[in-house]
Amino acid sequence: MTLLLALDFGGTKQAAAIANAGSREWLGYERALSPRNANANTDLEIMRSLIHSLLQGVKPAAIGVSFGGPVDATTGKVRLSHHVPGWENVPLRDLLAEEFGVPTRVDNDANVAALGEHRFGAGQGYDSLFYITISTGVGGGWILNGKPWQGAEGMAGEIGHMVVDPNGPMCLCGKRGCVERLTSGPYMAQDAREILENESQRLPLMGTFQEKEHTQRGEILRGLVEGNLELITGIVVSEAAVAGDDLAREVLSRGGWALGMGIGNVANLINPRRFVLGGSVTKAGKVWWDVVTKVARETALPEVNFEIVPALLGDDAPLWGAVALSLDALMTQPQT
Amino acid sequence: MTLLLALDFGGTKQAAAIANAGSREWLGYERALSPRNANANTDLEIMRSLIHSLLQGVKPAAIGVSFGGPVDATTGKVRLSHHVPGWENVPLRDLLAEEFGVPTRVDNDANVAALGEHRFGAGQGYDSLFYITISTGVGGGWILNGKPWQGAEGMAGEIGHMVVDPNGPMCLCGKRGCVERLTSGPYMAQDAREILENESQRLPLMGTFQEKEHTQRGEILRGLVEGNLELITGIVVSEAAVAGDDLAREVLSRGGWALGMGIGNVANLINPRRFVLGGSVTKAGKVWWDVVTKVARETALPEVNFEIVPALLGDDAPLWGAVALSLDALMTQPQT
Repeated sequence: MTLLLALDFGGTKQAAAIANAGSREWLGYERALSPRNANANTDLEIMRSLIHSLLQGVKPAAIGVSFGGPVDATTGKVRLSHHVPGWENVPLRDLLAEEFGVPTRVDNDANVAALGEHRFGAGQGYDSLFYITISTGVGGGWILNGKPWQGAEGMAGEIGHMVVDPNGPMCLCGKRGCVERLTSGPYMAQDAREILENESQRLPLMGTFQEKEHTQRGEILRGLVEGNLELITGIVVSEAAVAGDDLAREVLSRGGWALGMGIGNVANLINPRRFVLGGSVTKAGKVWWDVVTKVARETALPEVNFEIVPALLGDDAPLWGAVALSLDALMTQPQT
Repeated sequence: MTLLLALDFGGTKQAAAIANAGSREWLGYERALSPRNANANTDLEIMRSLIHSLLQGVKPAAIGVSFGGPVDATTGKVRLSHHVPGWENVPLRDLLAEEFGVPTRVDNDANVAALGEHRFGAGQGYDSLFYITISTGVGGGWILNGKPWQGAEGMAGEIGHMVVDPNGPMCLCGKRGCVERLTSGPYMAQDAREILENESQRLPLMGTFQEKEHTQRGEILRGLVEGNLELITGIVVSEAAVAGDDLAREVLSRGGWALGMGIGNVANLINPRRFVLGGSVTKAGKVWWDVVTKVARETALPEVNFEIVPALLGDDAPLWGAVALSLDALMTQPQT
């Protein structure tokens, strides 16, 4: 039996799992939320305790690691975390390889999830694919010629900050109309909230007929949070859209449009065989998927073929990708 | 000596050249314009006569071919030409390989030019690069991991039809605000012409002061074509911009903006080390280059590094790429 250790350093939670090579079942699986004031050291300490609880002193054959932030995959060095301080230039691969004395590989979460879907999920048998995760952020990972493509400095896959509408709303990155700004869960929630707030303010100025029209607009969405607009999340917007709320549908459709534009542009540029979409926003239902697919098809040239399919591994995609990474580490590194 | 035959099927002209492997000098070089009613057969006949004149019966060791249209590089089959009828599904590689009895490879012109710049030009030593040609159209070719990346069906590289302004002017492809629609030579010429025409029509409605202002706008451009707006080309727009014409600068800057947006988006997506820009529009001067570079840098994430450099091989990039292709054909195919 070849025991593989898979680690997932998320921005807000850590997960670790073990599996035998060739198996698709976890032998063990542990996770923990990060504390409020997490830093690189607390993240590492939490991960060590998860690993200890899983392994009980048994040595794994290899380690694969998914990290939620930019990584130089060739050296396994973390560049930084956008969520947790202290991760700047941490040689995570070497640190774990020394501590456990086994071959180790580290890559960023989108790349690792792409590898997971490629080896064990919706991308099996597809030697070129782009995996896109759409949840609190939007990220992507490439498989080209059957292998991860990380880019010259490990930064490839950032479809979230492709500009699709230069006159669109301002993104935290400083640009307008990024894919992430239009289609991530929190931004869709924010936009829905702002439209509802503005409409409430406008009401007193209007006559009876318009007032009726406007109280109806977004009524289902408003109802779902019992009028407390602070409670609106991406998921609530999706639920309202599924229930027929016009305002929620509008916001969700704009998000789907942005992602569809991004996918169509990517299809023209790289011509991958498949797009695999994961993350919470992909649960938004048929309205969202229909818009994504339609706009992607319209944006790509007629000669450019591709399929858009949902991811299969869910939240475990980075961990299964880490299993694949650990296998690769085992095959290519000198044995100890 | 290993004699290599390089062929370039352009939309409007054919070129053929021979060189010894390892040399950077042509032993012979022939070209001919296509007739007005060219089709695949006349293109092939012209090419045969160029080859005959070059080779005089001597057999080359291998053939590399650049074709101006979509090609399936794995089979060497031409999908179609957007300029010349009769090229639908022509098995060009097999046709030439049988006729000359030597290993042959065929790929589309942007991919082949990218390979040329990679092996012999501005991309030497860069194992990831994106070559973009900006002239009558806008196309691109990838080198990833030191090798051409053509995409799942040979369609990769189409940066020309990336949408950068969904509210922009309509492109022939049916979408709005494509990179090609905003930055190709003929489209910039068309836009400049239309602005001048509209301003002429508006003149009678205006007072003296505005009239003066408006006759000055685009005056240098108008002067360069002696008032005959039909004579405006992309090159004339560039010349007028260099001479300080405000309208020409505006049109050229918008083109540079569109290309810069495209490059920045591509940098985020694929993170190549270098962008190599060729084609007539890249001769437009400092204004254009400055805008392209600035906008690309602003559009890419701060952590994404890249360089933008001019191509070195000029119009010969496809032919030198064809030399590289012929060498590859020689190395990987069974010897006859």
